[in-house]
Amino acid sequence: MRFMPSEFDLIQRHFSRTAQNAVLGVGDDCALLQPGTGMQLAVSTDTLVADVHFFADADPQKLGWKCLAVNLSDLAAMGATPRWATLALTLPEVDDDWLAAFASGLYDCANQFGVSLVGGDTTHGALSLTLTIIGEVPPNQALRRDGARPGDEIWVSGTLGDAALALAALQGRVNLTDADLATLAARLHTPAPRIELGLALRGLASSAIDVSDGLLADLGHILSRSGVGAVVEYAHLPLGEILHDYTAHPAFDDCVLSGGDDYELCFTAPAAQHQALDQIAARLNLRLTAIGSILAEPGLIVRDAQGQPLDIRRTGYDHFAA
Amino acid sequence: MRFMPSEFDLIQRHFSRTAQNAVLGVGDDCALLQPGTGMQLAVSTDTLVADVHFFADADPQKLGWKCLAVNLSDLAAMGATPRWATLALTLPEVDDDWLAAFASGLYDCANQFGVSLVGGDTTHGALSLTLTIIGEVPPNQALRRDGARPGDEIWVSGTLGDAALALAALQGRVNLTDADLATLAARLHTPAPRIELGLALRGLASSAIDVSDGLLADLGHILSRSGVGAVVEYAHLPLGEILHDYTAHPAFDDCVLSGGDDYELCFTAPAAQHQALDQIAARLNLRLTAIGSILAEPGLIVRDAQGQPLDIRRTGYDHFAA
Repeated sequence: MRFMPSEFDLIQRHFSRTAQNAVLGVGDDCALLQPGTGMQLAVSTDTLVADVHFFADADPQKLGWKCLAVNLSDLAAMGATPRWATLALTLPEVDDDWLAAFASGLYDCANQFGVSLVGGDTTHGALSLTLTIIGEVPPNQALRRDGARPGDEIWVSGTLGDAALALAALQGRVNLTDADLATLAARLHTPAPRIELGLALRGLASSAIDVSDGLLADLGHILSRSGVGAVVEYAHLPLGEILHDYTAHPAFDDCVLSGGDDYELCFTAPAAQHQALDQIAARLNLRLTAIGSILAEPGLIVRDAQGQPLDIRRTGYDHFAA
Repeated sequence: MRFMPSEFDLIQRHFSRTAQNAVLGVGDDCALLQPGTGMQLAVSTDTLVADVHFFADADPQKLGWKCLAVNLSDLAAMGATPRWATLALTLPEVDDDWLAAFASGLYDCANQFGVSLVGGDTTHGALSLTLTIIGEVPPNQALRRDGARPGDEIWVSGTLGDAALALAALQGRVNLTDADLATLAARLHTPAPRIELGLALRGLASSAIDVSDGLLADLGHILSRSGVGAVVEYAHLPLGEILHDYTAHPAFDDCVLSGGDDYELCFTAPAAQHQALDQIAARLNLRLTAIGSILAEPGLIVRDAQGQPLDIRRTGYDHFAA
């Protein structure tokens, strides 16, 4: 069954707000956009599939926020300014209330980060969302994955493991109080892309990535693209208040070292930038923590407070060790 | 079930050819692209869902071609030069042969039209493809839907109804000889985006759209966006040799007037440009046919060779008549 034309009208009404930063927005064969003179474009595409990346009965307003936020996180990791997005929405049925809530969450995030939704497509099928984000960055200023150098410090923003612990609780693997679950679930469902931080890191950071697959896996991408290794101090990993209470739980290491969905930035910078980064943390009111150092020798070591290496083969890193 | 990391590696290998026109291609948080100085971007997103837009057992090589070609058709309708694309691929399973064939068709089309595949995402779920295309067009030269003016002639490229007749035959609604079906199926499965024509129409055409939903529906979009009406001469509609043999078939009108998937361009131009358009047709070796005129009065009339209006309520146009 395809949607009937009248159903398409219904759907499109929710996504036809005027695109303020477009020469021509929704309603023609293409959107027309005017990039800033000389600017480079940073482009990323992410798909969220029901029952793989989110629960099919997820709150549609939060889902609308998240599908844009996870793409914005990719722009943050490049140090790019958000500009435009397109949304491809595949729906099993037309549910006006669901669409209204989804669009509300999506536009909340778009407005907060200055993104114009300039086009997309609506199709009939199993629920999934594909969002393409376009940002701008001046030439030679993008934060890439391949610039980490031996001696650089490794930093991470915010706290780690919150979203993964919330997911573990929602899946019945961990018991949390209702209040703790509510706090952590916000990290899982409505992540805050670190756009301001990404912009502040231009010219300071030597490499950056967002923590979407887990700290070790994502740091591993930096290491392999840069051709270097790293040592991470387990005791330095930044934890939120709730996570502190779960350090003895069997799921703790997995959450902190390989939990996805935090959407913090992991980045490297020369040690000489340490003070400048502390000042950025103060200015943005955002915790920035030095968690280790880049080594010339390939490989990733996580060591405990006594300096002994931890066994991290089961934390999602081994795949990227080659 | 999610894909295992090793499966992602397998998938990504098929799509990691070096992006020649990107500052930074696949493998970072975002692709980095350098637009031409002062150029505007034309951006479009289309999703193809298995069993809605294509048969799930479709030839993967042709599917790879088509998913890019239908997006290129949107650029053609804007008069834009193709530059970059991202692909979001949702797959029910990892089938190496299928992926190799799909990538082969996709890159064939990309190479022919100068497109660089610069990024994307691979996820696990029901088979669907979302492609976002980015092209360039100089300011104020894009072909839009809202520029048709009373007195303009209405033109269409190529021939109409071929893809729809092929689909009708594949669905068992029409009987065709094997040879005829093979000829028409190529129009359905490997459409040729009219990129060169779109570029040639800059400065000549007053409006343009690609025929993806059927001639009357798509011309209807031009009329409603331009605030005008039109008369179309049924006897002038361009038919291929095979279609000529089916003019008496009950499915004929539906194929020619409301059949989708032809991906020809429908455009309008001042009558003074008639000769210039004939010259473009000769230069591009592409049939261009004047099929009617734009009227000040809203509404769409299709009239037969005797000048009598046809009943077109059942041909997909009525939805756009309001």
